Amino acid sequence: MRRTQSGDEMAFRVGVIGGGQLARMMVPPAVHLGLDIRVLAEAEGSSARLAATQVGDYRDVDTVLAFARDLDVVTFDHEHVPQHVLRALVEAGVRVHPAPEALAVAQDKILMRQRLTELGLPVPDWAAVADSGELAAFLADHGGRAVVKTPRGGYDGKGVRVVRAADEADDWFAALAEGDQGDALLVEELVEFRRELAQLVARRPSGDVVAWPLVETVQRDGVCAEVIAPAPGAAGRVAELAGQIARTVADEVGVTGVLAVELFETTDDRLLINELAMRPHNTGHWSIDGAVTGQFEQHLRAVLDLPLGSTAPHADWSVMANVLGGPEQGTLADRLPALMADQPTAKVHDYGKDPRPGRKVGHVTVSGDDLDDAVWRARAAASFFEG
Amino acid sequence: MRRTQSGDEMAFRVGVIGGGQLARMMVPPAVHLGLDIRVLAEAEGSSARLAATQVGDYRDVDTVLAFARDLDVVTFDHEHVPQHVLRALVEAGVRVHPAPEALAVAQDKILMRQRLTELGLPVPDWAAVADSGELAAFLADHGGRAVVKTPRGGYDGKGVRVVRAADEADDWFAALAEGDQGDALLVEELVEFRRELAQLVARRPSGDVVAWPLVETVQRDGVCAEVIAPAPGAAGRVAELAGQIARTVADEVGVTGVLAVELFETTDDRLLINELAMRPHNTGHWSIDGAVTGQFEQHLRAVLDLPLGSTAPHADWSVMANVLGGPEQGTLADRLPALMADQPTAKVHDYGKDPRPGRKVGHVTVSGDDLDDAVWRARAAASFFEG
Repeated sequence: MRRTQSGDEMAFRVGVIGGGQLARMMVPPAVHLGLDIRVLAEAEGSSARLAATQVGDYRDVDTVLAFARDLDVVTFDHEHVPQHVLRALVEAGVRVHPAPEALAVAQDKILMRQRLTELGLPVPDWAAVADSGELAAFLADHGGRAVVKTPRGGYDGKGVRVVRAADEADDWFAALAEGDQGDALLVEELVEFRRELAQLVARRPSGDVVAWPLVETVQRDGVCAEVIAPAPGAAGRVAELAGQIARTVADEVGVTGVLAVELFETTDDRLLINELAMRPHNTGHWSIDGAVTGQFEQHLRAVLDLPLGSTAPHADWSVMANVLGGPEQGTLADRLPALMADQPTAKVHDYGKDPRPGRKVGHVTVSGDDLDDAVWRARAAASFFEG
Repeated sequence: MRRTQSGDEMAFRVGVIGGGQLARMMVPPAVHLGLDIRVLAEAEGSSARLAATQVGDYRDVDTVLAFARDLDVVTFDHEHVPQHVLRALVEAGVRVHPAPEALAVAQDKILMRQRLTELGLPVPDWAAVADSGELAAFLADHGGRAVVKTPRGGYDGKGVRVVRAADEADDWFAALAEGDQGDALLVEELVEFRRELAQLVARRPSGDVVAWPLVETVQRDGVCAEVIAPAPGAAGRVAELAGQIARTVADEVGVTGVLAVELFETTDDRLLINELAMRPHNTGHWSIDGAVTGQFEQHLRAVLDLPLGSTAPHADWSVMANVLGGPEQGTLADRLPALMADQPTAKVHDYGKDPRPGRKVGHVTVSGDDLDDAVWRARAAASFFEG
């Protein structure tokens, strides 16, 4: 199966569509495992520029087919590659993981809710609503408040809105009539939750699934700010249930690579699925430094259908803190000396992106046997990169 | 100090001379820390090809000066860059770490023995011998046997020979007369040792030094085969002494970056310095996966004069096994599926080099709380890549 010439020719060859930080963080494990990694980036100077062998539009079939030539597998930094492009790859004989049919479920939130409901998995009450009249009916049934989501293209709190009146989504209904974003919005009950959790698993095409420990995620303004691994006090029933949910999604939807299942732990002790992501995910970044096999290595192994690695953690606790926005003046590099001097156990990740308010530009992880200490150190380290 | 344009312009910029596996393994931490890493490789298709921005001869001043333009620091994959090239860099205002004066001590084994002896550090009995008469005198004083070494260019057992008669080094004396390898050979007593150890430290230009745990190294045919971290049973006096020796060398010789001190633990309970290396070293590979800060990250931090990271290990034991030669047929990639299926806790490192008898083409590391189990697993994992 492997080519026999020297150099890159001998290696498994993985192509990643999208040049963001997720593609960037696939580079280190690719180097260690001896994989040849190639990135199709949106622009010059992308976060994954070191491995960017091509710059082009991932919505263009010819561009993507040219990129995929001679690759062993194509995978993704994001979930935005259109279905017709994905299907053209498959028709051309390219191995694509996750497969188009699975990715479709992550690309459209209404389709996601339909599939999860069909599978009998726990989700918030939901409906697809085509106009404000249908939204009004849902609000009337759910105490006068709900969450409205655009089915496609939302991330990090974008495309999500809490509404208390049926006219508060009129602009989105108007946009539906004009665009190609489907013919309905998703509306969900506003869940009363104690905290948010995330369960990451990885699945090979041949079927094996491994799970990392269930984690707690702390959101600020709709964006993940911190992750605690494992989720405190969730060792028993909750962790088991989360694992079952994620494995069921992976198996039944046929997800390959890393699957992230974001969950609400409700005030009445239920777990409800909030979102799915079919790629390495912010809530799994702790595993790069905190587990035997990090999510980026595991994703590469999974999409190549290689046996999966141990997900055992290195320490009792790992805490990851995102760096949002970055320094107001200068660059992250300017802040490295002070951060490193103050926190010698912090694992620093700078995504090589220009600082901009609210933008994820890096993260730090601290592991140890004392949770409070790890939380404090991770926050302290991240704070050197901010403000 | 940092540039303010987008992309690579914002990052610290490190240049590495030499495109071998040591340069290759600097790439992952450079990506994580947001450093811009550039490699001057000897040839196309080098082990560090992903970061190789230039291919050229490191013995050519103009080539190296052109490579060093706009770099924050130049460091090395090997110790073979000639002194006149190093000094030209310094004269051009380039920061070079380790500095030429320190590297000189690693480049010439006679100079190394002289400096270590001046510093009062424990070394085997030695002499610089210019002809077989001087060698005969040394043999007569040391029980009729000794180790002869060429002062320059030796590695992995090359340039090292055990002799029992004064004429057994005649070919090397003849070569001395012809070449630029100095005017003497190094001869040393044949040390009766119980085992070999290695102490790695890292030092910043501003002076801070950190040490990893002392490790035991198992050699086969003059080449490092396995490393056990920490060295079993060496927690007390031996570990303390090894740390003192390495710190003294780093401070007094002015080494910057990673320094490896290879040691003999003698049958009469002494520690004697065998070799020095002023770069990340095979005996420190376990730290990539087994310590909070691996040697390659630490080397980058040190040569940039950034604060050093914690060297704490993740587990009670880490065992590294080298992959020597590689598979007789096919490539390492062919063997990955079987290796990964058998050893899910093994951290695999494939240097992207063509298999060749005796060549270091990769390594594996296994960490855990049971030494025998870790040794067994590391050997088992490495064996999938061999034969």
